[in-house]
Amino acid sequence: MSTNFPTSPETSFQKLPAPVRLDSGRVFGPVTVGYRTWGTLSERRDNAVLVCHALTGSADVDRWWGGLLGKGRALDPSRDFIICTNVLGGCYGTSGPASLRPGSRTPYGPGFPEITIRDMVRVQAAFLAELGVKRLRLVIGGSMGGMQALEWGLTFPGKVDSLAVLATSARHSAWCIALSEAQRQAIYADPNWKGGYYTPERPPSAGLSAARMMAMCAYRSRSSFEERFSRRTEASGGFEVESWLGHHGQELVRRFDANTYITLTRAMDTHDVGRERGGVAAALGSLDVPALIVAIDSDVLYPPVEQREIASLIPDCEFTSLSSPHGHDAFLIEESEVNDLVCRFRRQSANRAGIFQEAACF
Amino acid sequence: MSTNFPTSPETSFQKLPAPVRLDSGRVFGPVTVGYRTWGTLSERRDNAVLVCHALTGSADVDRWWGGLLGKGRALDPSRDFIICTNVLGGCYGTSGPASLRPGSRTPYGPGFPEITIRDMVRVQAAFLAELGVKRLRLVIGGSMGGMQALEWGLTFPGKVDSLAVLATSARHSAWCIALSEAQRQAIYADPNWKGGYYTPERPPSAGLSAARMMAMCAYRSRSSFEERFSRRTEASGGFEVESWLGHHGQELVRRFDANTYITLTRAMDTHDVGRERGGVAAALGSLDVPALIVAIDSDVLYPPVEQREIASLIPDCEFTSLSSPHGHDAFLIEESEVNDLVCRFRRQSANRAGIFQEAACF
Repeated sequence: MSTNFPTSPETSFQKLPAPVRLDSGRVFGPVTVGYRTWGTLSERRDNAVLVCHALTGSADVDRWWGGLLGKGRALDPSRDFIICTNVLGGCYGTSGPASLRPGSRTPYGPGFPEITIRDMVRVQAAFLAELGVKRLRLVIGGSMGGMQALEWGLTFPGKVDSLAVLATSARHSAWCIALSEAQRQAIYADPNWKGGYYTPERPPSAGLSAARMMAMCAYRSRSSFEERFSRRTEASGGFEVESWLGHHGQELVRRFDANTYITLTRAMDTHDVGRERGGVAAALGSLDVPALIVAIDSDVLYPPVEQREIASLIPDCEFTSLSSPHGHDAFLIEESEVNDLVCRFRRQSANRAGIFQEAACF
Repeated sequence: MSTNFPTSPETSFQKLPAPVRLDSGRVFGPVTVGYRTWGTLSERRDNAVLVCHALTGSADVDRWWGGLLGKGRALDPSRDFIICTNVLGGCYGTSGPASLRPGSRTPYGPGFPEITIRDMVRVQAAFLAELGVKRLRLVIGGSMGGMQALEWGLTFPGKVDSLAVLATSARHSAWCIALSEAQRQAIYADPNWKGGYYTPERPPSAGLSAARMMAMCAYRSRSSFEERFSRRTEASGGFEVESWLGHHGQELVRRFDANTYITLTRAMDTHDVGRERGGVAAALGSLDVPALIVAIDSDVLYPPVEQREIASLIPDCEFTSLSSPHGHDAFLIEESEVNDLVCRFRRQSANRAGIFQEAACF
């Protein structure tokens, strides 16, 4: 397996034994999964926790959700066997547009198949089978990770004990689709895009950077920008917020692939838990595991009204609104609050299940 | 005067007698103003109303605010002498980046000076002097037009009788600056941009279109998109909202200039009524004319909190929140409601001033 983007040195790789049948009907393979684990799978194989990452994330939970990871925390390697895989279509170790075609020295690029959130989940399930994991005591994720968590509960109802779902949607709204499409168009406008057939040496950096800048506006909030930057200018005369935004654009260009960005935002646009399940209400109404649904009160991308809807439809559900000025990204930024919420939820779930545990957290 | 973009056949042109001194200190000229009028200036020259347009608007009030224009309406040509000028830096008849340099066959392009909202207002004032208008009974505008209206009250306090200001800001927020900057970066990513030195035959259409698509997301609202498009797809398999967004991108490309977009969004970013006036509170506190401040409850670009702040600082002020699913663009879309609000405000102002009028509207 090889991608054009560096994975962390701790990343492991697992080739799946068989190709996967995608939602589109296409059979795709071979599939390699880049992953990381923390802790040990118990002899009874009943302590696995799957963490699902967001759009530009990786399997490196310690790098993007470190505050939730550790003894006594929401993800506790002394009790849990914590697993995170880079998603199908990603560029951090799992097969995606930046991976080389088998027997070739060129990446799939725009030839990578169209995928859905359900395809990501199916690949995770096939991978977990390889790892010998039969059940997950928790599937947790925010944003695109939350979409995967919901799909886990619905696609493999017998294999999941609980869900923790943050700042996400039951189905991608027209507003989110529009924001994604505007970002894709910025990438297409870049002269280096070349219909996706760019070279690693000349990627469509300006377009991807502009897309990321657009996204960052939606990931944060008016009040967080106002609090942090207001109208302060730099010595150059430019506004601080412009420079911060440009930095974030460049930072993504350095570490992410444009075709991957297209593939994953399109996958998010397909997200609709009600598809082929009789609609959102019927789908979520059929979920038979306890779920924690967390909204961010300042989230403009997946506003609280969406999580309230999810929570109102899941039979066994705890809904919490997290107060933060940081907008959607609060699910990553407010690590301490998120950790506390997940700890409490896990403690309550364990108590209800009659399992008494002496851990600090749950 | 010549621009690369067609003005409406009804547009008139007026060359100013002298260059203008811009906020930057630069002296710029000659300046031509493209404008339209409705009604007749009274003998006492006391019935002029200035309408200020938004970012991509023109002097053609009948085309973008037709519902406010007509006998018995907010802008009544049987009583008012209604004037609208294309702003300085625009591409619909007033000197801007798309205008040809004097004695040259090439446009100013990126060589057009940096301007501010105050510069636009100064040019309007110089133009009105040419027209023989000494006072304005009302200055009205939404969005960038509202910025101009506020600046009119502050820059020429003795020349304005009242203000009607919709869906705007006392000073451009970091969030708005960020959204503008992401849009500009999408334009810069276009291979035809060439640092602004593009030809009329090969403008940076893909970049400008992506910028407009981005802007359209902020001009509307999540609920308006959800109501109108939800997740409906077209025969092609694409989402309806993507196609609608692409249409709006193309529509702007057909009628607007990229350098003008850069110049005007930068001018909006400079907007701060408190600059060199001791801050926003001191500036707005000094306004001594009655003002109507209208917020749109679903506006994410200039949310109601901004208009509430403006209203709380202006001594003689009426604040109204307009309920609409359409977001920021409601100031253009909800013409009937806006017309009613402005009619009522004008009637009240007239009554308070002891002027009894028998018009249907005021």
